[in-house]
Amino acid sequence: MSASLPPVFHRVSGSLFIEGVRLSRLLSFGAQGRGIATPFYVYSREQLRRDFSRYTHAAASLTSDLGTPPVIAFAVKANPSRALIEILHGWGAGATVVSAGELALVRSVGIPGDKVLLHGNGKRREDIDAALDIDALVSIDSEFDLQHVQARAVARGQTARVLLRVNPNIDPQVHPYISTGLLESKFGMAEANIERLRPLLRGLSASTPASAGPLPAISLRGLHCHLGSTLKSGQPVLDATRQLLPLLARLRSDGHPIDTLDLGGGLGIDYSHRSGAPAAPSPAELMAGLRLILARHSDDPPLRLWFEPGRSIVGPCGALVGRVIGVKHRSSDAAAREATGERSFLCTDASMAQLIRPCLYGAYHHIELLEEPDPTADTQLRLYDVVGPICESGDFIGQKRLLPTPREGDGLMIYDAGAYGAAMASRYNLHFQCAEYLIDGTQVTRIRRAESFDDFARTFVCEPLFSAEEPE
Amino acid sequence: MSASLPPVFHRVSGSLFIEGVRLSRLLSFGAQGRGIATPFYVYSREQLRRDFSRYTHAAASLTSDLGTPPVIAFAVKANPSRALIEILHGWGAGATVVSAGELALVRSVGIPGDKVLLHGNGKRREDIDAALDIDALVSIDSEFDLQHVQARAVARGQTARVLLRVNPNIDPQVHPYISTGLLESKFGMAEANIERLRPLLRGLSASTPASAGPLPAISLRGLHCHLGSTLKSGQPVLDATRQLLPLLARLRSDGHPIDTLDLGGGLGIDYSHRSGAPAAPSPAELMAGLRLILARHSDDPPLRLWFEPGRSIVGPCGALVGRVIGVKHRSSDAAAREATGERSFLCTDASMAQLIRPCLYGAYHHIELLEEPDPTADTQLRLYDVVGPICESGDFIGQKRLLPTPREGDGLMIYDAGAYGAAMASRYNLHFQCAEYLIDGTQVTRIRRAESFDDFARTFVCEPLFSAEEPE
Repeated sequence: MSASLPPVFHRVSGSLFIEGVRLSRLLSFGAQGRGIATPFYVYSREQLRRDFSRYTHAAASLTSDLGTPPVIAFAVKANPSRALIEILHGWGAGATVVSAGELALVRSVGIPGDKVLLHGNGKRREDIDAALDIDALVSIDSEFDLQHVQARAVARGQTARVLLRVNPNIDPQVHPYISTGLLESKFGMAEANIERLRPLLRGLSASTPASAGPLPAISLRGLHCHLGSTLKSGQPVLDATRQLLPLLARLRSDGHPIDTLDLGGGLGIDYSHRSGAPAAPSPAELMAGLRLILARHSDDPPLRLWFEPGRSIVGPCGALVGRVIGVKHRSSDAAAREATGERSFLCTDASMAQLIRPCLYGAYHHIELLEEPDPTADTQLRLYDVVGPICESGDFIGQKRLLPTPREGDGLMIYDAGAYGAAMASRYNLHFQCAEYLIDGTQVTRIRRAESFDDFARTFVCEPLFSAEEPE
Repeated sequence: MSASLPPVFHRVSGSLFIEGVRLSRLLSFGAQGRGIATPFYVYSREQLRRDFSRYTHAAASLTSDLGTPPVIAFAVKANPSRALIEILHGWGAGATVVSAGELALVRSVGIPGDKVLLHGNGKRREDIDAALDIDALVSIDSEFDLQHVQARAVARGQTARVLLRVNPNIDPQVHPYISTGLLESKFGMAEANIERLRPLLRGLSASTPASAGPLPAISLRGLHCHLGSTLKSGQPVLDATRQLLPLLARLRSDGHPIDTLDLGGGLGIDYSHRSGAPAAPSPAELMAGLRLILARHSDDPPLRLWFEPGRSIVGPCGALVGRVIGVKHRSSDAAAREATGERSFLCTDASMAQLIRPCLYGAYHHIELLEEPDPTADTQLRLYDVVGPICESGDFIGQKRLLPTPREGDGLMIYDAGAYGAAMASRYNLHFQCAEYLIDGTQVTRIRRAESFDDFARTFVCEPLFSAEEPE
């Protein structure tokens, strides 16, 4: 659908633009020409719109078959930015959350509970309570999780609407840290576990209306499955769906008011920016595959599908921008460097404190200078390790990158940092959380101010708690 | 020195104590018996004292040879806790810092500039300015770094007291992310680079007193070297020292007022807690080795030695405490689990959001339950993956640990989390920065309150910055 649209990230006369904004201008505007502080995250509203609408358009094709529009429940863990979530909410998105903190965030934006799902393998009491506060769906990860949710529902006199998270033992062929659908991962229940739970569940759940008697503590609404992240194809999701539908039918036959199937998220994006790279899997293909599978079950009662995309919605729209602090060569002799393959270091103020993915997962992020170098200058490409100022060797953004030698102060952009970038930021080396900006056409809006030392230091206290000399 | 001291972490009748405090009491005190929220970091003042005093005692043995006591400059990046730094400052510690943020922290504690060193491969203007504000020593990492420090000193009309960071190309045999003394790392200058800089440095620096003319922008005081972290022996530091002393003499012969040699930090600690594990390298051995080397240079003018220990000072004194959320077995049949070697999952509320070392470096942290299980209960040891509630498979604290099956709500302690624990914490999944406590004898003091959602959300803003439609 995007072939006819103008590019969001594009160059005009060598200058990198996001929508209508020349990025290097952000580094130099203002009276003293110092621009805004780096590093910072910047997001394109238009790119966000395109990536989100790929899901809504594709999902719309399922609505007539299913009788109800699928819920596109943004995975907040990918980027807990209030501004981005507000925009997505305005476009009809729901939210997948994993903690009381994320629930507080989506509540502050106003997403209603019927579009919110809480999942997670280790829900704490406050997480469950926060979900029940807004009557969100809760994905049950394990037997102990079921007991905990039930206990809170009973204590609160509420019915918890729940899904069961199935671990289908399907290998999504991604980095082990973000592969979640294999039995060796901590997530979900094997089908055999769920079969063993069926008698218990029949006792807990009931399809009788609340008016017919005391509220059942648990209302089992369906199944949930999430295979992992950076999926290269929708095929594992289709395989899982085929596996889940018969189980869903058995649970329905047990009398549960089954109306929901959550197929998770995890579609990958093209981080490589290489021409000829395999295309990232598309929501349209995924939905088309699902339509074929679900057509065989067209006699079943209507099913509301949920999807939990995170990376594929907010990844491409976000970038991390830094300034070049300096360039370091070990040998002064370019020929010697060439001969030995010696790497040089391009040091930027963007670091693993803002973006830990390269260091943690060995992830590739495409890097470009904001301005193509002056053609009269030294434009020969050299092999650079792009590193940050954090005091450990793991602090790199990219390794062995062919780049022209920049001048100090030049800007560079790290692409596709909208997902699991700011979300995983630390204050390592006391580099505090950086500011974030939203570009909409020619408008630039600050959506998050940078943290200050005072923000950091305000949690330091000195409060005597107790003395163990007091009797227990 | 510690053989005769009572243990700080110890068990009494099956209960884990830190100093005089039974830890499980922290999880159950108060009117409702709910104790304090988990997870939290807890530090032992006595363990901190012992580990710091190993350095001061050992360093004292060098004072008579050198004529001046070495500076034990705590590496703040290991743990930027104001309370811990206040204590260390009270015991005479200096500070090694890597950013303006860390400089603000040590200033707030009152450490004077003559005991502070700023280092780092990518110093930003604000970092250099913050160091010059208190006349701290600055370690020059590269040629561009020298230019930047010189420029700021000139602009401010100050003399910057500097060291040159040497990269001696010595392999410390540690994880590549924390190995910093090889030429393939981004840190420091090879000796050959420094030789090439000597003519330039002679022009920048001068030993003439300031009264004799305009202030020199750079006063070269010596050399700096840091090989990496988790060193298993002091030997690489001794090797580096032998390499540095001739260079130091040549710089002195160039007329620089050389009086400082900073040998970095990095001594490892025993994370394994196995009896029979190789002893962690001791400051005493390191200093004894240095004494032998320096004795051969006893005719040289006095030299002030600096050390930058971080992990070996604050690592062992700190622990991360969590509660058990639940235990998950894939097979219901214990015999089948046994036969297939299937792992079970012990899910705790402590996670990679507080302690990323297991996930990032594959680091081992010893884990114990706060209370030994009731001997009448199921005390059979099982193989557990100890995982947190964060929604990725990388969120583990320990893998394949033999532990008794705990009850839900039981406390567990993750040892040796005082260094690079809270320092690298993130808010991933919106698990906010947790509280920290200090134990001193029988007293428990909260030294950091937990972050709240409001702390997190207060940086969200909506401020139009500019429109690119305005002329540039």
